[in-house]
Amino acid sequence: MTDVTYTSWSIARWSEEIETRLSMAGSEPFINLNPDDAREFDAIFIGGGASGRFGAGYLSAMGGRPLIVDRWPFLGGSCPHNACVPHHVFSDAAAQLMLERTFSGRLWFQNLADRIVSIKEVVDMFRRGRNGPHAVMNYQSKEQLNIEFVLNAPAEILDAHTVAVAGRQFRTRNLVLASGARARKLDVEGADLSGIFDHASLVERLDYEPGSTVVVAGGGKTAIEYACFFNATGRRTVLVVRDQPLAMIKDRETRTYLLDRMREQGMEFWLHSEITRLEGDANGRVRSATVRTPEGETRIDTDFVFVAIGARPNSEMAVAALGVATDEKGFIRVDSRMRTSVPDVYAVGDLVGSPLEMFKARKGGMYAARNIMGEESHYHVKDYPDFLHTHYEVSWLGLGEEEARERYRNVVVLRMPPDTPDGHDVALPAGDRMMLYAMMAPRLSGFQKLIIDGDTRRVIGAFHVGCGAKEGFQYLAHLVKQGLTVDELGEMDELFLSPTYFIQLCRLRAGSKVLKGM
Amino acid sequence: MTDVTYTSWSIARWSEEIETRLSMAGSEPFINLNPDDAREFDAIFIGGGASGRFGAGYLSAMGGRPLIVDRWPFLGGSCPHNACVPHHVFSDAAAQLMLERTFSGRLWFQNLADRIVSIKEVVDMFRRGRNGPHAVMNYQSKEQLNIEFVLNAPAEILDAHTVAVAGRQFRTRNLVLASGARARKLDVEGADLSGIFDHASLVERLDYEPGSTVVVAGGGKTAIEYACFFNATGRRTVLVVRDQPLAMIKDRETRTYLLDRMREQGMEFWLHSEITRLEGDANGRVRSATVRTPEGETRIDTDFVFVAIGARPNSEMAVAALGVATDEKGFIRVDSRMRTSVPDVYAVGDLVGSPLEMFKARKGGMYAARNIMGEESHYHVKDYPDFLHTHYEVSWLGLGEEEARERYRNVVVLRMPPDTPDGHDVALPAGDRMMLYAMMAPRLSGFQKLIIDGDTRRVIGAFHVGCGAKEGFQYLAHLVKQGLTVDELGEMDELFLSPTYFIQLCRLRAGSKVLKGM
Repeated sequence: MTDVTYTSWSIARWSEEIETRLSMAGSEPFINLNPDDAREFDAIFIGGGASGRFGAGYLSAMGGRPLIVDRWPFLGGSCPHNACVPHHVFSDAAAQLMLERTFSGRLWFQNLADRIVSIKEVVDMFRRGRNGPHAVMNYQSKEQLNIEFVLNAPAEILDAHTVAVAGRQFRTRNLVLASGARARKLDVEGADLSGIFDHASLVERLDYEPGSTVVVAGGGKTAIEYACFFNATGRRTVLVVRDQPLAMIKDRETRTYLLDRMREQGMEFWLHSEITRLEGDANGRVRSATVRTPEGETRIDTDFVFVAIGARPNSEMAVAALGVATDEKGFIRVDSRMRTSVPDVYAVGDLVGSPLEMFKARKGGMYAARNIMGEESHYHVKDYPDFLHTHYEVSWLGLGEEEARERYRNVVVLRMPPDTPDGHDVALPAGDRMMLYAMMAPRLSGFQKLIIDGDTRRVIGAFHVGCGAKEGFQYLAHLVKQGLTVDELGEMDELFLSPTYFIQLCRLRAGSKVLKGM
Repeated sequence: MTDVTYTSWSIARWSEEIETRLSMAGSEPFINLNPDDAREFDAIFIGGGASGRFGAGYLSAMGGRPLIVDRWPFLGGSCPHNACVPHHVFSDAAAQLMLERTFSGRLWFQNLADRIVSIKEVVDMFRRGRNGPHAVMNYQSKEQLNIEFVLNAPAEILDAHTVAVAGRQFRTRNLVLASGARARKLDVEGADLSGIFDHASLVERLDYEPGSTVVVAGGGKTAIEYACFFNATGRRTVLVVRDQPLAMIKDRETRTYLLDRMREQGMEFWLHSEITRLEGDANGRVRSATVRTPEGETRIDTDFVFVAIGARPNSEMAVAALGVATDEKGFIRVDSRMRTSVPDVYAVGDLVGSPLEMFKARKGGMYAARNIMGEESHYHVKDYPDFLHTHYEVSWLGLGEEEARERYRNVVVLRMPPDTPDGHDVALPAGDRMMLYAMMAPRLSGFQKLIIDGDTRRVIGAFHVGCGAKEGFQYLAHLVKQGLTVDELGEMDELFLSPTYFIQLCRLRAGSKVLKGM
């Protein structure tokens, strides 16, 4: 047991301490408890990831007393450890590799043609680098957010007001379940072979260099994001997709642009297909995947299968100890105040189901904190912007063109490149980090559209493929909820080159009482 | 004279036609006039760049009849031809080269150590690629915006209602001067040698590979942006700065972060210094620059000098023909309706002086159009967001910390990396396209701060160094003008990883009635 209550470790020191704990099975817990605080805990957060940590931080800021318990020696949860952050590292690698491959042998670029680059080295780099963010989270949570915690120790829920951890029992007014979710596994023969990875095990366990063929099961965000990285390393990449890929992007043109680009990079999409069997070699590593396609069964030789077919909640302990109600997949049911079916027990984050996104986890924590502190507060997750990465950054909000046309009689679309036969061969859009493409490979330079209700002149949808728009979509989504019009957009001050061109395109059309597309 | 009135050229065709015109001295003008429109022109725009083209587009959308005349065979002006767009291409190259140099020999990266890469090849690429955007502007202006024009022909202003161009005279109710600005030249011996470039002549005239030393005169945006590119190519790069560089960034920490990074890349800043003489070789190309520094005079051997010491307006013809009033530097004076001192004559864009930015040019055109069409409309340029590029994308708005502390008694700062001794060695911030740095070279992964008035909880300043925040700053500036608070930010839906972390950092603090920094 390492009592850190009276330490004031630097971020660098935290990084070393976390590293040591992670590399040693059965290492000591960290305990940070204020012995001078006689108050009962307002809430114990089971899990210190995005939802638990933000909930505890907010509760502390409100004047309450939170305690976080987590099995890992760091706060921040799976995101910086083996979930969202590595995906961003791999997506950056994919973007960089596509650029280098496109420009192979031109300008100063090396020739990467036909060269397969290491997946393992990128994974290893991430594994070495991830303790930096971990350390910041511990430092920030302790020194800046005033959060008490017990880390590096599994917790046991005894009842709605009692938690056992690191050999001690803690009493609390409320319990906040924030234990997250894990990747769903394939339910086929051979699913437990080595060489079958999900986003977490890839980072934790990859100890060999994958061969030249990768099979990815799934067509959602995680599947696409990782598949693009594997493809960019130069490997044959086959996505086995039960229905259609990219179904979350509700605009056909945007989806088509993306799929065209992925196929152009050599990615194979096997649609309406499923992996039915995985075979291993003498060492227990996968050596082939059998896939059922609409045309029949095919076997692909591969030593590397990546599975991204959804999530399962880590709800077992809470269900067993408390009997909290769940949905059919085991996600814990909560009301708009983040309350479970059990009095004084809240649940937040991935544990309560879709969308499994950072903003929902963090805001859920915040809303739970408010309700616990006596401020009735309802969280309705809706109308949020969204994103994923292919080799590009893709952001969107609101309605796609098809749904917009169903719901509005006068839909106006502002699009770049222009909707002409040679539109995709012109160097627009050209945003920052897309300029080299714009100059030498125009059709790779991105795609964007803004969808407007021509009657009210309000923005009802926005889509962007390129780089650098994601930050803007956060604020744009907020403005769209306020009723943002083309006229307001036309009055804003754009920063040229703005990745989306939305402001300038609106200005070009805003002078007209009858809005037109372009 | 090529009459394009009844053509409907594709973008590709426009590209070919523009290319042909540009490569041939004395080539024919393009004329696009509607012979069926009996109306007098509401405005002739002298210059079809950002201000003229947007003004004409807006006026057309309002139902008016504009005519654009331009000496170039394309609309869009200097921006896509030799000003802002090439700077973005070069800045992308700088960002890419810094990444490749940082990772030289690691992962899949080639070894660029000590290797000087070609400037000329990048310039040539831009010169070949720039007609794509030109073609889109012509296509869009003609087919989508319904703008009449005479291009590829110099105009002569005869009086406030008459312009001669391509051998014809056109009458108009109003004139809009939109002829832009040009780079100011060095006023020293040898300033006319070959090998002395500004942003325009670099693109138009570079016909040799510069040697290993570059001298840049200036410390403003253009100087910094181009100097970073030259540096990233592997050349010794000396900036000769009269006062201090980056003075436009009103936050000391942000400025310091940037200067530290530029110096780390090897850039030399010679402060309080001036070029006093340029010497040439037998062929009339510069071979050395003499610089007066606080420590005395020094000579630098170089065959490549880049000058970015401000702008001069292209106002001579309008002054001579119309007698419009100007300021001491020759920029045309306008009121908030974009009216000059001469009745029925407006001026817009760089021609009316600072800030020489795209949004001001375009909005000036829009405001001129409204006033011309009888809609009294006042444009006050203020509180706009801003940006520049080093090897990074840098965006800012509002007050820097120093001025904020002078004006507000309770200033709260949210900063990343954290303000600790080892802050700059931790892998945060980590935004998209900065993730590789975050994992292996943390101090290169960026810098950001949000400045808040703790009493009203309103955002009063924001600064970001990294990638991908510029788009957001457009909308953030709009929200800040509306009075954006940390509480509103904390309720927004962030897209993780958002480059700035502003939303999440605000949420961590928003629970407290008394705001604290972090």
